[in-house]
Amino acid sequence: MRAVVLTEDGLEFRGDCIPATLPGQVPIRVLTAGICETDLQLFRGYMGFRGVLGHEFVGVAEAGKFVGQRVAGEINCACDRCETCRAGLRTHCPHRTVLGILNQDGAFADRVWLPEANLHPIPDNVSNDAAVFVEPLAAAFQIPAQLNLKGFRDIVVLGDGRLGNLCAQVLALHGRDPLVIGKHDEKLSLLQKLGIRIRRVDENQTARQADLVVDCTGSASGFADACRLVRPRGTIVLKTTVAGTTGPNLAPVVIDEINVIGSRCGPFPPAIAALTNGDIEVTSLITGRYPIEQAVAAFEQAQRKGQLKVLIDVSG
Amino acid sequence: MRAVVLTEDGLEFRGDCIPATLPGQVPIRVLTAGICETDLQLFRGYMGFRGVLGHEFVGVAEAGKFVGQRVAGEINCACDRCETCRAGLRTHCPHRTVLGILNQDGAFADRVWLPEANLHPIPDNVSNDAAVFVEPLAAAFQIPAQLNLKGFRDIVVLGDGRLGNLCAQVLALHGRDPLVIGKHDEKLSLLQKLGIRIRRVDENQTARQADLVVDCTGSASGFADACRLVRPRGTIVLKTTVAGTTGPNLAPVVIDEINVIGSRCGPFPPAIAALTNGDIEVTSLITGRYPIEQAVAAFEQAQRKGQLKVLIDVSG
Ligand SMILES: [Zn+2]
Ligand SMILES: [Zn+2]
Repeated sequence: MRAVVLTEDGLEFRGDCIPATLPGQVPIRVLTAGICETDLQLFRGYMGFRGVLGHEFVGVAEAGKFVGQRVAGEINCACDRCETCRAGLRTHCPHRTVLGILNQDGAFADRVWLPEANLHPIPDNVSNDAAVFVEPLAAAFQIPAQLNLKGFRDIVVLGDGRLGNLCAQVLALHGRDPLVIGKHDEKLSLLQKLGIRIRRVDENQTARQADLVVDCTGSASGFADACRLVRPRGTIVLKTTVAGTTGPNLAPVVIDEINVIGSRCGPFPPAIAALTNGDIEVTSLITGRYPIEQAVAAFEQAQRKGQLKVLIDVSG
Repeated sequence: MRAVVLTEDGLEFRGDCIPATLPGQVPIRVLTAGICETDLQLFRGYMGFRGVLGHEFVGVAEAGKFVGQRVAGEINCACDRCETCRAGLRTHCPHRTVLGILNQDGAFADRVWLPEANLHPIPDNVSNDAAVFVEPLAAAFQIPAQLNLKGFRDIVVLGDGRLGNLCAQVLALHGRDPLVIGKHDEKLSLLQKLGIRIRRVDENQTARQADLVVDCTGSASGFADACRLVRPRGTIVLKTTVAGTTGPNLAPVVIDEINVIGSRCGPFPPAIAALTNGDIEVTSLITGRYPIEQAVAAFEQAQRKGQLKVLIDVSG
């Protein structure tokens, strides 16, 4: 099959990749997939992943109870046997594989495999392009899953990229009025068109006032900025990891008694419902699309400034 | 008056220091004071403090409603006018001075000044030596003030120093059975005598299992250790700051969706009550004492390995 493979020598398209079929998992014919920040980090060597990349996708199940239906897939494949799984923390299973990220070939390929429990059917009125956003949108819906948002009035989202945009929309959908602080005029104006308050990062910021800061910057300075913006005893939600062996000094967390909450993958059902109801706008985030054969060019574009979501068309 | 002053040239004892009396604040004749980790950090240049050091003390109020009584004092002096103060977050007042730490002369002196609202009388059956521990013990009582400890079964305290010891005792007092992980045999055996479970840091640790890790190490590696010990979606309480411009990488916080809670000064009343009732053992933590004239020697001892609490006797 065709696949986009990360090797010791870098990223390459292969026309004749032999799939590593996974017993007990459902084969899915991939329609469209999306390049995410994690893919770019893996591409740069973060986590040392080798294999087929890709974890944001929509495809058609070729077996199991969803056979013939379009599906999106949760990316964490748990063992379902260990103490962590039995405690209901399947996404944290220490034995898990993660689609296109950890020990499991991903979705930039003609076919991808996932356990049936990970699959969610996509309603007809959600386009393939929109369905590619189910996985990152679910990550944004993890914020209301972790926090009772009613307790937060003054909310800042740091970062105007893909994830910052989706987090801001999810917060607005929950009746909050977040301020997105970013550094890309085009990305900010996209948010403004959606009715979301925006500010450039180089403007004067009101320090120590936000009840909640959501750090979606993926940059080392993001956390320090968040510490400056949040009020004493306020909350910082960390949505993005930053590569490297060191990070920010944590003294402000102690001195201001800040509550820092790590937030990763989230629930698919509210993300699919929001796309079905048209509550969240995603297709305007698409800034490029390539056939799978040109995946390397797709990655090159995705890395350039001003890009939000670059799609890879596989079939259909 | 006699005072221990931190200057550009280092720490010095002065026999003829002219006190910076503070209008509206209560003069207190200092009896005994204690050297804390923060004092050692200030001594090394952290925060650039200049003036009289010292914030753990017991003394006799010389004016106001506690005149003639022994008192301990909360160290944050708030403006009581700003939005933060009005929101009940006096210890986080952005205009605050902090006794012996920030813009306010401290307690290693014949006389110290504090607002009357900061003072707490010390019952007769609490010795001067024990009363010096009210302030650090209050910091340990901040943990149950921030968290409902009933939700945490498997609890680890990282660090067998002063603060780790007090935190472990406070957790045990709240019906928890914390495990203290440390690297000093003598300090660990002191905890063991108090009925607290101990383990050396170089022994095999059970990774990713603790519901709650309290980091009292004051070291850069403490947080990384805490991330390894805590379970996914577990809680880390950060009690100690670490000097420097960088800190630990925060990727584990995101990946394991850890909740990090900064924790600083705490409530005096439960600390005084615990000492009054004999619920917490503190005097066995005293490893040295010096008259105020020998404060520099006291600091030298406090910095050496194996030290827990070095006292400075001022008068009485
Ligand atoms: Zn498992
Ligand atoms: Zn104030």
